[in-house]
Amino acid sequence: MSSENSYLVPGTSVQIPGAAEGPLRDLTFMAKDLFDVAGHVTGAGNPDWARAHKPAGSHAWAVERLLQAGADLTGKTITDEISLGFFGQNAFYGTPLNPKMPDRVPGGSSSGSASAVAQGRCDVALGTDTGGSVRIPASFCGLYGLRPTHGRVPVQGLVPQAPTSDTIGWFARDAATMERVGAVMFAESPAAATHTEVILATDLFEACDPANAQALRSALDRLATRTGNIRQERLAPEGLAVWAQAQRNIQLAEAWETFRGWVDAENPRLAFMVARALQFGASVTEADLEAARRVREQVRARMAALLPRNVLLCLPTAPCVAPFKDEPVAEVDTVRDRINTMCCFGGLAGHPQLSIPLAEVDGGPVGLSIVGARGTDMSLVATAKAWEDHQ
Amino acid sequence: MSSENSYLVPGTSVQIPGAAEGPLRDLTFMAKDLFDVAGHVTGAGNPDWARAHKPAGSHAWAVERLLQAGADLTGKTITDEISLGFFGQNAFYGTPLNPKMPDRVPGGSSSGSASAVAQGRCDVALGTDTGGSVRIPASFCGLYGLRPTHGRVPVQGLVPQAPTSDTIGWFARDAATMERVGAVMFAESPAAATHTEVILATDLFEACDPANAQALRSALDRLATRTGNIRQERLAPEGLAVWAQAQRNIQLAEAWETFRGWVDAENPRLAFMVARALQFGASVTEADLEAARRVREQVRARMAALLPRNVLLCLPTAPCVAPFKDEPVAEVDTVRDRINTMCCFGGLAGHPQLSIPLAEVDGGPVGLSIVGARGTDMSLVATAKAWEDHQ
Repeated sequence: MSSENSYLVPGTSVQIPGAAEGPLRDLTFMAKDLFDVAGHVTGAGNPDWARAHKPAGSHAWAVERLLQAGADLTGKTITDEISLGFFGQNAFYGTPLNPKMPDRVPGGSSSGSASAVAQGRCDVALGTDTGGSVRIPASFCGLYGLRPTHGRVPVQGLVPQAPTSDTIGWFARDAATMERVGAVMFAESPAAATHTEVILATDLFEACDPANAQALRSALDRLATRTGNIRQERLAPEGLAVWAQAQRNIQLAEAWETFRGWVDAENPRLAFMVARALQFGASVTEADLEAARRVREQVRARMAALLPRNVLLCLPTAPCVAPFKDEPVAEVDTVRDRINTMCCFGGLAGHPQLSIPLAEVDGGPVGLSIVGARGTDMSLVATAKAWEDHQ
Repeated sequence: MSSENSYLVPGTSVQIPGAAEGPLRDLTFMAKDLFDVAGHVTGAGNPDWARAHKPAGSHAWAVERLLQAGADLTGKTITDEISLGFFGQNAFYGTPLNPKMPDRVPGGSSSGSASAVAQGRCDVALGTDTGGSVRIPASFCGLYGLRPTHGRVPVQGLVPQAPTSDTIGWFARDAATMERVGAVMFAESPAAATHTEVILATDLFEACDPANAQALRSALDRLATRTGNIRQERLAPEGLAVWAQAQRNIQLAEAWETFRGWVDAENPRLAFMVARALQFGASVTEADLEAARRVREQVRARMAALLPRNVLLCLPTAPCVAPFKDEPVAEVDTVRDRINTMCCFGGLAGHPQLSIPLAEVDGGPVGLSIVGARGTDMSLVATAKAWEDHQ
């Protein structure tokens, strides 16, 4: 086990200067250890994965994009094993520091990226979000974190998990930096905040800790001149549990398909919870999977109707502040289920979702998520910038 | 990962002289890393188990017994993780050498004990046998290996797995040494071979590789003056698959009960197959467990009737010679199921079973098991001695 609190993959040292000219030439960035960096083994948070793979021949698309825009790559960051985990506790490489709450977890699976940005060790860090792996550490560490519209950022050079939910996102400490990176990643000029209506997802607010819900609603009240009247809607008339189960079945069944070849060849060492998640994926029946896909189609149709380009949806990013480190598995399971209930929306709908560090509870950060129509990622960032200026 | 082929637990060095006087004072022995040795952490084949436990305060009963009889303890040997495994491939500590077939596995879970004895590094080694963990490495490494009558050797100071099947056994290269150790462990004088009838378990012979069955039957033919006429019987009219499933359900459900507290507290790193076995144990329903216990009661009643003290039962110890190392999980699963089919008899019946290195196939050793009435352990060893003299 490596030294506690490290956010860098043990034994790695990466310093790759970006292009001399480019819009991000003043920025440094790090990349989660799921992204290929030429000449380095992509370790995916597990020593048996690293041992079974050769150094990458070229950079992942997202890494190359930021380098060409002038940003300097300064590190490979710890991920939860094979990106399965919400807590950021890697049994082999340790738990990166959450500088906002040092006795709590940083959140995962993009734990090292969030930790590095929150500690000011780089300006931006790349993560991935399949079931919440950017959004959750953004909320727990008090950062901006974007899960882009599914399919907008190419996944070339990425260790996949569940392809129909996988996205590439990033963290920054301020909305302006989020926007600058977005302009490069999406090849799109900064947008204006386009919403004329705001919806609050009441069922998701009800599913989070009352103190968190209260803190986020107070923050929204303070933004009243920016939000106008807020309409209240239940997103899941069938119940959030149905959504959560659908996402879990789809995601873990796909994760098993992704990793089963490696598991079969290597019988790798994995933390118990990670192995159990893979085994759960292996046990999902075709009938369960078809039912889950039908739920997903319903969610997508409903969200497309609910969220035209002029509507902004608000929901809590996480159900709670960052949990304490080293809790028993049973407690982690309980919180994991609550997080999945809050985050499953992202994978099911595929809409862009930006977590904004808008409030505090118990001295710890709490993120509000804003969600828009597919493709309105830059508009979400513009909204965050406007709110940031207003605070 | 430690150096390949080591049979000793990495980082351990144990040298404890036995009593100056005693019947075993010319023997050296080693103990599987499930047995407490005072002043040392009992590691159970997993670094996260070792980290979570303090050094033992006193020796396990079986270790103390051999020391008091004069044998010198000269090492702690590698076990499969938490004694779950038939192959002897520990993902953390490596695969002990099978000196009879160096490109094959030694068998497990008492892998290091079998390897050390087969290499001549000690005279005797303690192992445990819950589902086959002494019998299988005895067959694969060409050793004598005894699974005693269930309950005869006290398990005090042992990391348990599945208490209603756990037994403490040992390996030696010759029957005379087996007998000397048995006399100490059972506090019983050497017995005579008491059988007047020999039964051959046809369904178990049919379940093993034809070459193995043929080699063992030829060896029995050569012993005809010792065995007399051999009666053929099917042990499992309901089918061996029913037995195998019953043993697997009972054993892994109990293993989950044994290890769940540790798993919950530590979320330990485990090889995928080990974690999956625990998760299987967690998923066994009460109804499945009750059905399995009914099967076990039937097996016990039938074996008590079939095996009075004058009857000896012969069956193949393993379904095959030692498999190649580093086979894919799917292949290991297939062989594991075949081994469990052959070995489940031991856990279900609780009778003593001695594996004798009686034949060879493809240049590798093949064990024949002899089984007698409960409590006739020393008589089995006497039979083996007589056969050894006859060969």
